[in-house]
Amino acid sequence: MLEELKKRVFEQNISLVKHGLVVLTWGNVSAKDEETGLVVIKPSGVPYDTMKVEDMVVVDIEGNVIEGRYRPSSDLPTHLYLYKQYTTLGGIVHTHSTYATAFAQSGREITAYGTTHADAFYGNVPCARELTDEEIDEAYEQNTGKVIAEAISDVEAIPAMLVKNHGVFTWGSTPEKAVENAVTLEEVAKMALLTEQLNSETPRIKQHLLDKHYFRKHGKNAYYGQK
Amino acid sequence: MLEELKKRVFEQNISLVKHGLVVLTWGNVSAKDEETGLVVIKPSGVPYDTMKVEDMVVVDIEGNVIEGRYRPSSDLPTHLYLYKQYTTLGGIVHTHSTYATAFAQSGREITAYGTTHADAFYGNVPCARELTDEEIDEAYEQNTGKVIAEAISDVEAIPAMLVKNHGVFTWGSTPEKAVENAVTLEEVAKMALLTEQLNSETPRIKQHLLDKHYFRKHGKNAYYGQK
Amino acid sequence: MLEELKKRVFEQNISLVKHGLVVLTWGNVSAKDEETGLVVIKPSGVPYDTMKVEDMVVVDIEGNVIEGRYRPSSDLPTHLYLYKQYTTLGGIVHTHSTYATAFAQSGREITAYGTTHADAFYGNVPCARELTDEEIDEAYEQNTGKVIAEAISDVEAIPAMLVKNHGVFTWGSTPEKAVENAVTLEEVAKMALLTEQLNSETPRIKQHLLDKHYFRKHGKNAYYGQK
Amino acid sequence: MLEELKKRVFEQNISLVKHGLVVLTWGNVSAKDEETGLVVIKPSGVPYDTMKVEDMVVVDIEGNVIEGRYRPSSDLPTHLYLYKQYTTLGGIVHTHSTYATAFAQSGREITAYGTTHADAFYGNVPCARELTDEEIDEAYEQNTGKVIAEAISDVEAIPAMLVKNHGVFTWGSTPEKAVENAVTLEEVAKMALLTEQLNSETPRIKQHLLDKHYFRKHGKNAYYGQK
Repeated sequence: MLEELKKRVFEQNISLVKHGLVVLTWGNVSAKDEETGLVVIKPSGVPYDTMKVEDMVVVDIEGNVIEGRYRPSSDLPTHLYLYKQYTTLGGIVHTHSTYATAFAQSGREITAYGTTHADAFYGNVPCARELTDEEIDEAYEQNTGKVIAEAISDVEAIPAMLVKNHGVFTWGSTPEKAVENAVTLEEVAKMALLTEQLNSETPRIKQHLLDKHYFRKHGKNAYYGQK
Repeated sequence: MLEELKKRVFEQNISLVKHGLVVLTWGNVSAKDEETGLVVIKPSGVPYDTMKVEDMVVVDIEGNVIEGRYRPSSDLPTHLYLYKQYTTLGGIVHTHSTYATAFAQSGREITAYGTTHADAFYGNVPCARELTDEEIDEAYEQNTGKVIAEAISDVEAIPAMLVKNHGVFTWGSTPEKAVENAVTLEEVAKMALLTEQLNSETPRIKQHLLDKHYFRKHGKNAYYGQK
Repeated sequence: MLEELKKRVFEQNISLVKHGLVVLTWGNVSAKDEETGLVVIKPSGVPYDTMKVEDMVVVDIEGNVIEGRYRPSSDLPTHLYLYKQYTTLGGIVHTHSTYATAFAQSGREITAYGTTHADAFYGNVPCARELTDEEIDEAYEQNTGKVIAEAISDVEAIPAMLVKNHGVFTWGSTPEKAVENAVTLEEVAKMALLTEQLNSETPRIKQHLLDKHYFRKHGKNAYYGQK
Repeated sequence: MLEELKKRVFEQNISLVKHGLVVLTWGNVSAKDEETGLVVIKPSGVPYDTMKVEDMVVVDIEGNVIEGRYRPSSDLPTHLYLYKQYTTLGGIVHTHSTYATAFAQSGREITAYGTTHADAFYGNVPCARELTDEEIDEAYEQNTGKVIAEAISDVEAIPAMLVKNHGVFTWGSTPEKAVENAVTLEEVAKMALLTEQLNSETPRIKQHLLDKHYFRKHGKNAYYGQK
């Protein structure tokens, strides 16, 4: 079932490796099928170099395995929480990509310093609050989704969140878009760190330029790319 | 038409990827045909791994599409502005390469610290001024060309410019030369950042050595390379 | 003899190169055969790109060569010391991986700043003390094993050690696990350095989250990966 | 003539690219034939990806081209100066490798912080003095050799030199050894910079450990590698 979507989810998981966003098995991509509402996700802890399309796991929105011989990614409840809260999402990505995770570990948001950032994210990328001990003890992965949702102001305008001391989640209307946002997030995290090293007083990009670049690529007046 | 030039422009766009200067679709190379004055440029937002030679777009100097089924790069007006101002240019490159863009985001020029820099750029690589809100609102891409031109003192001696909060433009007599300058710019940006980390008081390379290296490779007394 | 284990040791040595953990010949992987107690290790100073499975050296626990035409790695006595002290170890890795070695050179432990670290190491990764001049003069490699053992509090919970001014050793129940720990160590070392650059006052990950992630992957209540 | 040596010089030039030590055409390897005293070197400014074995240039010790249709590397006089001064040298390498060049640009020597350094270099790697304007004007490349020689205390014990504001030269008894030293130099430069970032007060490796590692690999009591 959902053969085409399983293939896309598989390919986007492999794409994380090609883009240098994951080491070993530290990352996963999921997608939600619009028609059935089922979710396809990477199996837990399976190495990328031996993983196959048919290893993808199909679950329902409550996390029950509908198809697949493997356990789904242990981060599945985070994905499901977000799909439930934000019904327009078609793909979600989790990584521990190096520079973005360093921001998450330091507890800092990623400041929008340039148009590379503004082309994808309409403002600073925030860092979700720490989970309480109780939230960690009970339904940890689901509560990770909860603190992400708490920190989201506009799920479409800034399709990424840093998870404190952990890593990053990104999303989009498709798994391909979600991966693209994960790639961009890591690159703007690296650029932001370098920018601050060059000038620790660097101001945020001015709002007018942020608007220009974001809306050049998004919304009804977008003119970047092909029609 | 211009089949040979389209092939070269295609190859130089691919070369940006090979040199690690572009992520996703963030970059473009153009070339101007000396005889016809037509410009060949990468299509907008087309992924590098599926792009073909025939996807290159041919436009006239006013930006009218002469051949090609895709929209040209959204940065086309910047390229055209520079081709008009500087008629000796045969190729222009735009990238968001990581270290050079960090300099652009911090609003700093790249200081000439060594002969790697001096071999390609006869002095510090400047950072163009910020665009005004009005310049952003109207003909943004063309005005990007305008602020670049404003900051150019000698278009041949320093064939590169940082665009504030944005990225970099480089150029040359051919698209191949323009790409070579983009490669060098990124490398000297990285070296400059590391040099300052090792010694924050590092002085600029002395003028005598800058002259020696620049003129060893450029001008009538050059003796680097083959005749 | 031990053909299967030699193949695995060979492959894991090659894996160090693929993961970017070794330059030239600076690294080695060994494994202990549970049944015979013999140890298989990389030969000394043989380049990775010409090395073959049959070049692996088989030694007994005292370091006598049982099979192989090459000398074993000069670090063999360190491996043997650790196999003797910790009989549950099935694989040991030595590298000079860049970021972890920078920590070892600076004499600092790697602080646990996030879940990437906690997934593999149950606490900070310590740096063993400097060897005395006498320890260097006599049985240097064996004494390297001794100072590592001195600094180990729980060999399973933190399967890695920095060796001051030198490099790193990691281990595990198999050579594959030991290499996985070497990969993780390098990545968390890089993340830790970047985290401190972003916020020099970053606190250690809170114990509750460290526990959660470590025990999600290790011990009887683990639920990460496949059964 | 010297077909075997031309092949080796060609391969070692290519090896610089594989090891990430050169960008574009910024580097060269030469070798001296022990029997004839002739020197084989890379041609000037020829791209690595189209270069062939037969493009290598054979010159005599005064720099006269004996065989080859290309001009030799413009750095040839530096190589020749060093071959004349140090008759035991069989290979010389010049690169602008990123981290080592950053040290050269900052005018700082590379401090020996660990055994990775001590395995190859018996002490800090010095930075040669700046050339005077007169030395730049006249026989610049030869004078580069002269200031390198001035700063050498023991050509075998520390087979590398930083050239101020420029790049690095390394050498050895063969071109392969010279390239190996160039690889090591870049890696220890990177490690040294990171070490200082982790602890700006990091002391040099203690002499006893430096001795141990250097002499484990060099001299009559060496026991690293194969007999």
